[in-house]
Amino acid sequence: MNQQLKVAGRAQVPPFGVMRILARVTELRSAGRDVISLCAGEPGSGAPAAVSAAAARIHAEARPLTYTPALGITELRAAIAGHYQRWYGIEVPVRNVAVTTGSSGAFMLGFLAAFNPGDRVALARPGYPAYRNILRALGVDVVEIDCGPETRYQPTPGQLAAASREHGPLAGLILASPANPTGTMVTRAEFEALTRWCAENAVRLVSDEIYHGITYPAPGAEDARGVCAWELGRDSMVISSFSKYWGMTGWRLGWALVPNDLIDAVDALAGNVALCPPAPAQYAALAAFDEESYAQADREVEAFAATREALLANLGRLGWGAAAPADGAFYFYAELGGALGSFADAGEYCAALLEEEGVALVPGADFDSAAGRKAVRLSFAAGHEAVLGAIERIIRFQSKVR
Amino acid sequence: MNQQLKVAGRAQVPPFGVMRILARVTELRSAGRDVISLCAGEPGSGAPAAVSAAAARIHAEARPLTYTPALGITELRAAIAGHYQRWYGIEVPVRNVAVTTGSSGAFMLGFLAAFNPGDRVALARPGYPAYRNILRALGVDVVEIDCGPETRYQPTPGQLAAASREHGPLAGLILASPANPTGTMVTRAEFEALTRWCAENAVRLVSDEIYHGITYPAPGAEDARGVCAWELGRDSMVISSFSKYWGMTGWRLGWALVPNDLIDAVDALAGNVALCPPAPAQYAALAAFDEESYAQADREVEAFAATREALLANLGRLGWGAAAPADGAFYFYAELGGALGSFADAGEYCAALLEEEGVALVPGADFDSAAGRKAVRLSFAAGHEAVLGAIERIIRFQSKVR
Repeated sequence: MNQQLKVAGRAQVPPFGVMRILARVTELRSAGRDVISLCAGEPGSGAPAAVSAAAARIHAEARPLTYTPALGITELRAAIAGHYQRWYGIEVPVRNVAVTTGSSGAFMLGFLAAFNPGDRVALARPGYPAYRNILRALGVDVVEIDCGPETRYQPTPGQLAAASREHGPLAGLILASPANPTGTMVTRAEFEALTRWCAENAVRLVSDEIYHGITYPAPGAEDARGVCAWELGRDSMVISSFSKYWGMTGWRLGWALVPNDLIDAVDALAGNVALCPPAPAQYAALAAFDEESYAQADREVEAFAATREALLANLGRLGWGAAAPADGAFYFYAELGGALGSFADAGEYCAALLEEEGVALVPGADFDSAAGRKAVRLSFAAGHEAVLGAIERIIRFQSKVR
Repeated sequence: MNQQLKVAGRAQVPPFGVMRILARVTELRSAGRDVISLCAGEPGSGAPAAVSAAAARIHAEARPLTYTPALGITELRAAIAGHYQRWYGIEVPVRNVAVTTGSSGAFMLGFLAAFNPGDRVALARPGYPAYRNILRALGVDVVEIDCGPETRYQPTPGQLAAASREHGPLAGLILASPANPTGTMVTRAEFEALTRWCAENAVRLVSDEIYHGITYPAPGAEDARGVCAWELGRDSMVISSFSKYWGMTGWRLGWALVPNDLIDAVDALAGNVALCPPAPAQYAALAAFDEESYAQADREVEAFAATREALLANLGRLGWGAAAPADGAFYFYAELGGALGSFADAGEYCAALLEEEGVALVPGADFDSAAGRKAVRLSFAAGHEAVLGAIERIIRFQSKVR
């Protein structure tokens, strides 16, 4: 008699609402429907031309692409260190730079290196669901901090202190600025206060900076690219990526700035868990730091900024509720407010909007299992025309179902 | 006062001896020394020409390479399913094929999906150290089965039953055939007996088949490519890769055949842990299943076979002890026996051999913390000339230090 095998309890990751939406988008498009998808958290323009050209050259030469060192090729680690000099004016030793398989690879290595099972790690709700799901799969206790418009959807030292009192001492804090799904950023003063609180409470700060550079500062504003956690201290782990600013999502290449005390652990873990980040992407990504690549990426950011302006200018017509200020990234997160109408929640609203008008948004529950039930995330990475077209359709949809 | 941060206990992965050796190889070569490295577990020839050409084309077109589905593009999943028809004559549904970021990515997802913290998973010692290290980082109890020449370094149902009695019921078994570091393979009858034992004892079999196709069967032998676990049952997880047979180590592309009960968990985990496997590699790897790519890979295997013959023909001159039969892969694992001379262990022997004769081998302790102290692994992936040259140097070294 064969015995029953089991699925591990920790593998019970909650499904994303967006996956159902995306599957339906594919179906509708296959059936010939014209669908505007504002779901994707990725630019559609692709890598800088110099990066694609470098990759084409590498493969045309049929260079054997064998394993690289676990933390990446030295030239790329040095180029990334140089990027911190350029954008933030800080010196980052090459040995602290770990190239990873996307920021996803950096989160896995960082979480394994810094947190034991049973440790408590705080993060903002709403937030990127993969933080929560990876941490839980690794046995870490996730402490969700409810963040609303009053703190621009970012956690404060006061909230962290309250969470420690309620749940017990924290081991870590995940901070994302700009954040997903809200796009909000912390100011330098807020970041300093959070860093200080973490230092005083033995809390490891993990700073997700993958949207740095995709920001919409006032002219002449300081910290225009975002504040880097390593400007404020070197105990934190900074996580970033080629995916967003350089438009290289599918290449799966990211990096971490790893504090001294974690380097040996991250190096050994990387050699076991990943062996190395993708080699062709590593060699090609050296060209991301060319002047022309920065210029090309900045032009993409200007396009996002123009789309964001158009969206904000039309916002009143949507009749939605409280919205996050969208300081950076390419997301707009809002309560549906009265526009929810008779729908039970944003999941139903989004499903009906997709069927009737062919517009795909992500329901907020993916990012916030509590307050997110009546919110949506709209990605304006899809571009100007798509966003303006979607707004007209949404208005029509809302007027019909009202 | 700042508090002390900690490194997670689970991150304390034992360092590999091979890393010290490789670092020293780099130093010696930089200083102009002629070093023959027989360390690397990878072919140096690179991807099939059709794969490199496809990758060059993809990048030359500057196609935006955005996220793919978490389990990979459907065309590649279908092509992999077709490969199982070709090599093993079995039907694999496309939905059971998960494309992953190297076999490393498949191990992480499979281990997370199938095993909870505290579960016991058995594996052969000597064995690939990353199994052990990933499992331990995930809180799984590793039960090492001491395997020697009497079982061709592979576990038996009797050993597994004894291990269950000693340690408690097992949740999993990792089987590798051909194995690393020994290259040994289980016969179909042995594989059937192991599969039956697993089914009767609710043990999830994880079958590492990344060296399939790199085999040295007698002419006309059955199961020439290796026996696939899915020929024998569909509860196991099969893990494989483009790295070895197709020579694509640095590309980081592998796959798993996922049993029905684990698919949803693996899909959800993949979307959180990895997002997707590298997109450019996925599109290019479609060409790995062209006739000319199979033919090219087979020619590489013929070259390995010739090198292996030359190695075996010269083996007696080395004066080493018991050796694994090297049925497949490109590894030769042997006790040093009397050749160890006055060295305390193989680590010291390897270090001295590198300094004095410029030959790099991997000390056995990397694969077997117990009996491996007096063994070495030699990779003959480096090719005929390198291996024959190394043998002469090793003989000279041993005659000097004796």
